[in-house]
Amino acid sequence: MTKLEALGARAKAAARVLMTATTETKNAALEAAAAAIEAQTAEILAANEKDLAAARETGMASAMLDRLALSEERLKGIADGVREVAQLPDPVGAVLSETVRPNGLKIQKVSVPLGVIAVIFEARPNVSADAAALCLKSGNAVLLRGGKEAIHSNTAIVSAMRSALETAGLPADCICLVEDTSRESARELMRLNGYVDVLIPRGGAGLIRSVVENATVPVIETGVGNCHVYVDKDADIPMAAEIVYNAKTSRVSVCNAAESLLVHSAVAEKALPAIYARLAEKQVTLYGDERACAILPGIEKATEDDWGREYLDYKMSVKVVDSLDEAIAHIARYSSGHSDCIVTENASAAGLFLNAVDSAAVYWNASTRFTDGGCFGFGAEIGISTQKLHARGPLGLPQLTSFKYKVYGDGQVR
Amino acid sequence: MTKLEALGARAKAAARVLMTATTETKNAALEAAAAAIEAQTAEILAANEKDLAAARETGMASAMLDRLALSEERLKGIADGVREVAQLPDPVGAVLSETVRPNGLKIQKVSVPLGVIAVIFEARPNVSADAAALCLKSGNAVLLRGGKEAIHSNTAIVSAMRSALETAGLPADCICLVEDTSRESARELMRLNGYVDVLIPRGGAGLIRSVVENATVPVIETGVGNCHVYVDKDADIPMAAEIVYNAKTSRVSVCNAAESLLVHSAVAEKALPAIYARLAEKQVTLYGDERACAILPGIEKATEDDWGREYLDYKMSVKVVDSLDEAIAHIARYSSGHSDCIVTENASAAGLFLNAVDSAAVYWNASTRFTDGGCFGFGAEIGISTQKLHARGPLGLPQLTSFKYKVYGDGQVR
Repeated sequence: MTKLEALGARAKAAARVLMTATTETKNAALEAAAAAIEAQTAEILAANEKDLAAARETGMASAMLDRLALSEERLKGIADGVREVAQLPDPVGAVLSETVRPNGLKIQKVSVPLGVIAVIFEARPNVSADAAALCLKSGNAVLLRGGKEAIHSNTAIVSAMRSALETAGLPADCICLVEDTSRESARELMRLNGYVDVLIPRGGAGLIRSVVENATVPVIETGVGNCHVYVDKDADIPMAAEIVYNAKTSRVSVCNAAESLLVHSAVAEKALPAIYARLAEKQVTLYGDERACAILPGIEKATEDDWGREYLDYKMSVKVVDSLDEAIAHIARYSSGHSDCIVTENASAAGLFLNAVDSAAVYWNASTRFTDGGCFGFGAEIGISTQKLHARGPLGLPQLTSFKYKVYGDGQVR
Repeated sequence: MTKLEALGARAKAAARVLMTATTETKNAALEAAAAAIEAQTAEILAANEKDLAAARETGMASAMLDRLALSEERLKGIADGVREVAQLPDPVGAVLSETVRPNGLKIQKVSVPLGVIAVIFEARPNVSADAAALCLKSGNAVLLRGGKEAIHSNTAIVSAMRSALETAGLPADCICLVEDTSRESARELMRLNGYVDVLIPRGGAGLIRSVVENATVPVIETGVGNCHVYVDKDADIPMAAEIVYNAKTSRVSVCNAAESLLVHSAVAEKALPAIYARLAEKQVTLYGDERACAILPGIEKATEDDWGREYLDYKMSVKVVDSLDEAIAHIARYSSGHSDCIVTENASAAGLFLNAVDSAAVYWNASTRFTDGGCFGFGAEIGISTQKLHARGPLGLPQLTSFKYKVYGDGQVR
């Protein structure tokens, strides 16, 4: 048995206990974990300082340093996040359906935890607490494998949470940290069948690709968002400009930011300058097709690659289309299936778009930025699924459960 | 673009049309497909005869030959199966939930097809029609990849169904057959990301293992069943004997057949002889631990391997345990998570078992043989899922759907 298999076995044993833990026990553990994070602020910040020093030495970019950095205030925010999860409804134990068959068998479909959830993430130490809290509340043990840049911070946060679990009467191994941050350990985790029920990667496109390519355990693919806004011929142009501006610029580094703008040719001459004027306030660079470039002579020319690109930057591709169908076909070809929007006053065009566009979230007259567990009312999320198996869109607590059938008989045979 | 990618692209294009097809259109296509199978009975049987001749030449075992063989009557049964799927409720388009957020956004969660489902199966030509019908009704295009032993039969059945789709106004490519039955084509299909939304293997343990090991597309793992019956100290012994007899012997080759018997030591002296007497009617060989062998001197000695074995035969492992907890721990260690049963008159023991045993279906006083789409009232199934992601247990029509969020705004930005 390898070291990671041994850790997997410990997580699996803890999951069996957690599977039948009461809501009260789980909430008490979460409250205790939040308190422990606050109580151990000094230790966690000292550990974080080690990570930051090492990161500065390797010349980490300032945006990444900022994601890595903790502070008293940020730790308070992390602890409050854990407390908020305690307040959310318990997704486990719900009777999803119940039938009595003609032979008298009663069949109940009941929500249950998934078991052991592995989360592979990058250099953001807050993810360890967020993910652990969501997994714990949904009755799942978690195997956390964060980036090497945050190893000291993650170790300190997980250590605080583990001690709290024990005081609340749950096994510390409900939250396990993979201490080996080598590529090999990540690959082994992706293939830890028999111990890992589901693997959720949280990070950039490279991480997601590596997981999809290498994992043999079931995966929920997350996060890549090539989101479109289509401005229909019947759009309210000022509304379109506001939605595009918000979807593109309110936070460029996130997966629900818009990356591509499609405009119907009937309104392009009017809509494009209005939208561009708004985007120019944030110095957004547009990459246009021939017709867009003709209307907006100052912009860059798009290449084929631009249509599939997730810029995560103040950049956006733009194309003029001649029909709603052409817009839908373009989105079908290039969208990552995350969030796509139509701006129109025409209800039947909107209805067609919402039905035909095959993405996790499809919007009529609203910003794609709303695809988020908080905005959807889920309270919290562990990521945004862009696959169609199991769950799509924001992964809230109910999406971290499975179900089983409980069958009640009095001697039935077949 | 490889030949298989080209086929995947055709299936994907067809899936986009099928995604928004009405229930009436899909049902008309299914009725037409059933009629076409019947109308082309002569052609299909001639093709099947080619497969049978080749199989006889290679010395195929008679049980496998029987699975491969079609007849007029069997084809009528297959066509009727397709008609039954037409009668089932359409799982697509259901509003699963609807909320209005404080900012006025209306968020609808709506069931939608998965897209393109790939099904890899072995030498049973009926699977092509069954799987195609279930996928079609749930709005999914299907890529069928059957075993080389059934290629002529599958080609003839799929050809009949495809012609029917066109008369019903749907693209023939809603049902695509992978004609290349090499191992390489199966492997390529397992890695056809971008075209295949879900892969469902239908076959033996070797096929399932190969899919789990090689697939990069999302998979629903099916079918391996190491199912247990636990006879508690408070069991009704005659009922236990009937349930074990049925679970073991009513059909030994299926995944919901019981493979392992656990008996509480307090009743073992009485229960084991009673159960064994019943099993002996079918010449079942028992593989027992030391205590079981002491009570039933004629049986074989079990080795460690027996506890994890799916015999699919008139064979069963048997172990004496000292407590409900020991039974639960044994099942946790060796069960494949398919179906496990407790026989007891003690409601609190049953409740504990149903909660603590982490399998797709958990039974109190009924045979494990009921884990089946028909018995569960789903009308039909495409397999039995033994994983916890997406769906567990019998995969009926609702399990062949995903969902999307339709978000209705009037200009909301974040």
